[in-house]
Amino acid sequence: METIEKMIEDFKKVLDDSTHTSPETLKHEMIQWLDETLSPRLKQVLEERETQSSSEQTVTPFVVSGKIDYEKVILKFGCTKIDESLIDRVERLTSRRAHVFLRRGFFYAHRDLDKILDCHERGDKFYLYTGRGPSSESLHLGHLIPFLFTKYLQEAFKVPLVIQITDDEKKIWKKLNKEKSKRLGRENVKDIIACGFDVSNTFIFSSYATVGGKFYENVVEIADCVTVNKANSTFGFTGEASTAKMIFPSVQAAPSFSSSFPHKLFPDEKKNIPCLIPCAIDQDPYFRLTRDVAPRLDFIKPALIESKFFPALRASGNNGKMSASDANSAIYINDSAKDIKRKINSAVTGGRDNLEDQKKYGANLEEDIPFQYLSFFLEDDAELEHIKKEYGEGRMTTGDVKKRLVQVVTEIVERHRMARAAVTDEMVDAFMTPRPLFG
Amino acid sequence: METIEKMIEDFKKVLDDSTHTSPETLKHEMIQWLDETLSPRLKQVLEERETQSSSEQTVTPFVVSGKIDYEKVILKFGCTKIDESLIDRVERLTSRRAHVFLRRGFFYAHRDLDKILDCHERGDKFYLYTGRGPSSESLHLGHLIPFLFTKYLQEAFKVPLVIQITDDEKKIWKKLNKEKSKRLGRENVKDIIACGFDVSNTFIFSSYATVGGKFYENVVEIADCVTVNKANSTFGFTGEASTAKMIFPSVQAAPSFSSSFPHKLFPDEKKNIPCLIPCAIDQDPYFRLTRDVAPRLDFIKPALIESKFFPALRASGNNGKMSASDANSAIYINDSAKDIKRKINSAVTGGRDNLEDQKKYGANLEEDIPFQYLSFFLEDDAELEHIKKEYGEGRMTTGDVKKRLVQVVTEIVERHRMARAAVTDEMVDAFMTPRPLFG
Repeated sequence: METIEKMIEDFKKVLDDSTHTSPETLKHEMIQWLDETLSPRLKQVLEERETQSSSEQTVTPFVVSGKIDYEKVILKFGCTKIDESLIDRVERLTSRRAHVFLRRGFFYAHRDLDKILDCHERGDKFYLYTGRGPSSESLHLGHLIPFLFTKYLQEAFKVPLVIQITDDEKKIWKKLNKEKSKRLGRENVKDIIACGFDVSNTFIFSSYATVGGKFYENVVEIADCVTVNKANSTFGFTGEASTAKMIFPSVQAAPSFSSSFPHKLFPDEKKNIPCLIPCAIDQDPYFRLTRDVAPRLDFIKPALIESKFFPALRASGNNGKMSASDANSAIYINDSAKDIKRKINSAVTGGRDNLEDQKKYGANLEEDIPFQYLSFFLEDDAELEHIKKEYGEGRMTTGDVKKRLVQVVTEIVERHRMARAAVTDEMVDAFMTPRPLFG
Repeated sequence: METIEKMIEDFKKVLDDSTHTSPETLKHEMIQWLDETLSPRLKQVLEERETQSSSEQTVTPFVVSGKIDYEKVILKFGCTKIDESLIDRVERLTSRRAHVFLRRGFFYAHRDLDKILDCHERGDKFYLYTGRGPSSESLHLGHLIPFLFTKYLQEAFKVPLVIQITDDEKKIWKKLNKEKSKRLGRENVKDIIACGFDVSNTFIFSSYATVGGKFYENVVEIADCVTVNKANSTFGFTGEASTAKMIFPSVQAAPSFSSSFPHKLFPDEKKNIPCLIPCAIDQDPYFRLTRDVAPRLDFIKPALIESKFFPALRASGNNGKMSASDANSAIYINDSAKDIKRKINSAVTGGRDNLEDQKKYGANLEEDIPFQYLSFFLEDDAELEHIKKEYGEGRMTTGDVKKRLVQVVTEIVERHRMARAAVTDEMVDAFMTPRPLFG
């Protein structure tokens, strides 16, 4: 949740980051920021408050608020729920157990995933595409989720993967200066590599470095199919949105089509290689638009596999997604063991006010963040089931659950920290060099 | 002037050029073309008719219509008229006579030309930027005008020149397919080179090939300063315009700033090199916007030197600009001597209906296209003055003037044809290779 304090802090940051040499241009930028960033954000906060008071949900790539009913979201967006039979098919085709994020219903919706499985079953090629908008020095646990899942897909299906670092997006939306946006992008790439991707079939690229050539040609083709009215209705833009915002959806759409890449990446005798995109459900509007446009350009519609949001430590239940704006609401990959303990101990729980009540009623697991975090990070299904029963029925205390979570998270963060420390600049360059991905 | 016939012809061309393999996608494109191209063009024609009947003028980068009052245009746009003292200063600084297009008032308006002259006088660097949207296999005389003038500026000031071939523009506005647009661009580059530019300080580049890297970074910076409302009010776009149209003004703006180019083009220790843009007055909106944005990005506003329109053979007076749509209204660089004679003989003149009246009243030179063409292409001031007097006072006939024009134009076209025949693919590549322009 956005706060007034956060906005003021951002404003100061914009001032700090500014490199203007004349007061005139600085003034210009400040006024622009007030008009273009603060004012819409204020409006948004007001809208969000209204939304929350009326308990209605908002899910767009820019705002996620309200108590989210995930069933309603897919109804509204028109995607399909992932059912048991689809998960079974994934397990059969990959000869391995489905990832916990899939079997525990976190990745819960899709578009054309069945077609991708058909394609794989026929022995035809497809590739994975995911992305990240660089917004902080270090990732938090919520940021890791799509990458951990994507890594599973890459290993299970043995397919190439492209990861777009949308440094241009952060310039356009967050008013990060270009150089900072590029620098954060490169820092984030190190965290992504540390997840253990295979350099032999993974291409990580920044928008700034890659828009051009075939990529720009496709951006123009796509943008040419999208009217301003369509962009407005899809993303909630208004006439006061910058023209840069008008082009960005096409920049995010382009990697869905294999012909956007320099030919050496994909075998050029086959220009249309199907694409599967793992992402959070709030990115659906981008790819709905992409799918609308695809047939007009003789491209294949990208398939999607879409997740719920990773909850914040301090927001209750599934209320909104983890935010980078409140440092205490998220566990960062560079947090110390002490930080992790402190943050988890201050998390919102569904435990009762006193031990007596806890024993009597058990914990409300739907509101309990520590338990939810365990369902993401505790691999052992039997142990999770045990905790669910014992905690839910009052035989286990909130303190016990938090303690177990501290162990699990500390281990993940420690492992990530070591992996990240081993990532050299040469490795970053290797991942970011265009080269054949299909061997 | 756009005609219904022309639109139908264009529609057929879109059909011809289409490379769709499924009827579904072709249908899609056709419907899109009807909605996005034909319908606004029809509206435009209706508006133009209204405009003409009310004698009002329209000058935008997309529509030029009505009887044009050039004084009103600069008042409306806010540029400055070029006066004698400015021309004198140009002559003094360049130690040569001003080009006929300048001294005969064809290039008649400017923005900050005086500042560019100050810069040149101080011994500081500046560069020239002009462009062309490829729309036909061969250029016509009107297309050559800005290049002939730019060549004079380049030689007189001894400065580097960048020429943007906006192949993306023609894809976006004329629905040319991308490959055809790129091919026509390359053909047009040959005609441009044949004007005699110096390869040692001229860089010709296609949008498709160059947008990316530093160039894309600047496109984002510029687009981020331009709201959709601003683009709509500047260019007359509506919500039905494609998002590609929203970004194009920033693509045309970017070459005005030297930092848009790969560093090897410009000395990178000095990122802000002033830019002078020779163009027709209808391009002013693009660069007005560019100049608005420049200070917010710490860039120098580009200076402009702006021309009137080159008249069509068949439109009377200064009614609109020469159009590529009616082949008989323009003399093409690949027309035969016979074509040239035929076209000039059918040109609209200000001569009287019979010899008797002609002797009595003389020709109306303002309505006389052959005389106006001579004022562009006849270098000899004394001879032009002589014709003006004799023809205007009835001692010379329309036939005499046409005959002289046929000689002059045939010679120019013949010279150009030979120069173009000598342009090899290697030369095209040499002009289009990024390399240091300041030696």
